[in-house]
Amino acid sequence: GTLAGLGLGLGLWRWQQQGAMAASQEDENEDEEELRRRFMAAPVSGLRELRRRRRELRSRMELLIMETQAEVCRALAALDPGAAFAVDTWERKEGGGGISCVLQDGEVFEKAGVNVSVVSGLLSEEAARQMRSRGKSLKAKDGKLPFCAMGVSSVIHPKNPHVPTMHFNYRYFEIEEADGTKQWWFGGGTDLTPTYLNEEDAVHFHKTLKEACDKHDLKLYPKYKKWCDDYFYIKHRGERRGIGGIFFDDVDSPSKEEVFQFVKSCAKAVVPCYIPIVKKHRHDSFTPEEKLWQQLRRGRYVEFNLVYDRGTKFGLLTPGSRIESILMSLPLTARWEYMHTPPKSSKEAEILEVLRNPKDWVH
Amino acid sequence: GTLAGLGLGLGLWRWQQQGAMAASQEDENEDEEELRRRFMAAPVSGLRELRRRRRELRSRMELLIMETQAEVCRALAALDPGAAFAVDTWERKEGGGGISCVLQDGEVFEKAGVNVSVVSGLLSEEAARQMRSRGKSLKAKDGKLPFCAMGVSSVIHPKNPHVPTMHFNYRYFEIEEADGTKQWWFGGGTDLTPTYLNEEDAVHFHKTLKEACDKHDLKLYPKYKKWCDDYFYIKHRGERRGIGGIFFDDVDSPSKEEVFQFVKSCAKAVVPCYIPIVKKHRHDSFTPEEKLWQQLRRGRYVEFNLVYDRGTKFGLLTPGSRIESILMSLPLTARWEYMHTPPKSSKEAEILEVLRNPKDWVH
Repeated sequence: GTLAGLGLGLGLWRWQQQGAMAASQEDENEDEEELRRRFMAAPVSGLRELRRRRRELRSRMELLIMETQAEVCRALAALDPGAAFAVDTWERKEGGGGISCVLQDGEVFEKAGVNVSVVSGLLSEEAARQMRSRGKSLKAKDGKLPFCAMGVSSVIHPKNPHVPTMHFNYRYFEIEEADGTKQWWFGGGTDLTPTYLNEEDAVHFHKTLKEACDKHDLKLYPKYKKWCDDYFYIKHRGERRGIGGIFFDDVDSPSKEEVFQFVKSCAKAVVPCYIPIVKKHRHDSFTPEEKLWQQLRRGRYVEFNLVYDRGTKFGLLTPGSRIESILMSLPLTARWEYMHTPPKSSKEAEILEVLRNPKDWVH
Repeated sequence: GTLAGLGLGLGLWRWQQQGAMAASQEDENEDEEELRRRFMAAPVSGLRELRRRRRELRSRMELLIMETQAEVCRALAALDPGAAFAVDTWERKEGGGGISCVLQDGEVFEKAGVNVSVVSGLLSEEAARQMRSRGKSLKAKDGKLPFCAMGVSSVIHPKNPHVPTMHFNYRYFEIEEADGTKQWWFGGGTDLTPTYLNEEDAVHFHKTLKEACDKHDLKLYPKYKKWCDDYFYIKHRGERRGIGGIFFDDVDSPSKEEVFQFVKSCAKAVVPCYIPIVKKHRHDSFTPEEKLWQQLRRGRYVEFNLVYDRGTKFGLLTPGSRIESILMSLPLTARWEYMHTPPKSSKEAEILEVLRNPKDWVH
């Protein structure tokens, strides 16, 4: 069964068995239990609706992003025992909504956000063109295109400067053209932003991503690794935001099913990519100077996100989008010093060198 | 004499008398002394060149922005005795350069920057169109337009949350079209961003600006006050960056001389607008909660500057522009908390109300 293939286990498998059965009180109780166990909140589309259209890709993707959100939140919370994720659900009046999970000012994490959004409605031709990075033309009926966009996105800013910031995002889009044809595509990626370079961590992170990619096509990792280095480029600084990972957008081949399986592998790789690095360094000692360098790097993170990031810019320009969820990616604190330049051969200069000239971490 | 009219006093007046006299050793010594007394560094165009073309508006404007830079730096430094402005001069390989004065981590000021830039060269038609906010078309020869742009710009972020942030910028542009006609225009403004509302300060600030405007035309203050409220709008927050002031762009009437005299009045109003407010509050006591609110407001300042400010965006996109001078406007530190909402009727809610619904401070 395709849903079992999603790795969501018995609970969802059972939905599939029940098929078109009318909802009974028993089902509802089961749903409640299911939700508590499996997700951070009820899915935007509702369990019953997801069950009804369970063979459609958008339903399977919504379950995948919900599952990923819960997995990542649980793994992070387990490392920061004093803190807990606050869960907010929100609705978009134009259609859809989302679930934001935020842990702020914990012992290990300064700010960790894992956000799911599932929105639908009508797009203007202009907005549709902007949404699709390659700018494919889309034929609208009466200037409007029905669309559906969903994704899970997350930024984790730890307190300790020896624990890197991590970001991931996996998303799926559908747009219906005037003649009824549906365009669809996936995008996503996972990338790491250390304050200081640790080669072992860099290799582990990239290797885990490469393994997830290689299961599907050996060409994917090199292609998406380079795309990541190119995308997270802070042009005015001549630096990348971090040491990369993978990034892809507008992917609509070889087939919907194959791309979905690839995206699923990537989403499942988030926890094994990152959690071992957090575990390894969360108790590392650090100096006030190291903390200051972290704050300056946080400033660059803000610059990238506000000036270049397509998702952020698109979000800020979209009427009805939820600003707090979009700007969740910003660190709790950041710093800008005029003309700060680290001394040659310092640990600060070492990471800058890698941000200016990206390296291949695995071959 | 027009230069004396600039208020630059005897030294420059003497240049004018000397006219086309060849430079002697005596002149050079005098120039050196002049520079030390009057400016933060040697003007980008050179004293001799400015003297040679002293009747041209671009020379008079360059002297005005140099004079303004020095006046503001001296007034600020006098209030922060432990600190001093670091002066950097820089050159742009495509033509021109600038002088950046920065005071960082003082007792009174967290970060104060006053920047002069005088750049010239060739613009693409696209860049020229972007530079001019109303997007007037410009006819280029071989796709390139000779231009000259100069201005003084400044952002002052104080430490004490009861001292507001202040920004001003006065600038002048010339572009030469293919047929030799020169387009020119001025832009500028002065605006205040308090962490907490103090009505008396708001009235003083706006009244001082209104008086500077009223000397030239009674229509200017109301028009430019509204333009300021409109320009500094953080759309995704539904808030203005601060409590406004004046803002204008693309001003090319009634005449070059009249607009210059107006800009001069505005530039001269910067110190009387702001310095009394700093003096009044620099020793006010404040709580950690007030400092935290200031840091959150600093975050909004960063959002405006990186997402909306035309000058910053234009600067970041212009090859050869000096990033450190452009991003000097960012605060030393900033903070983003997820879903921070001040309680009703708090002092924090009071300023938000004014940022959401701008008030008229003088009539």
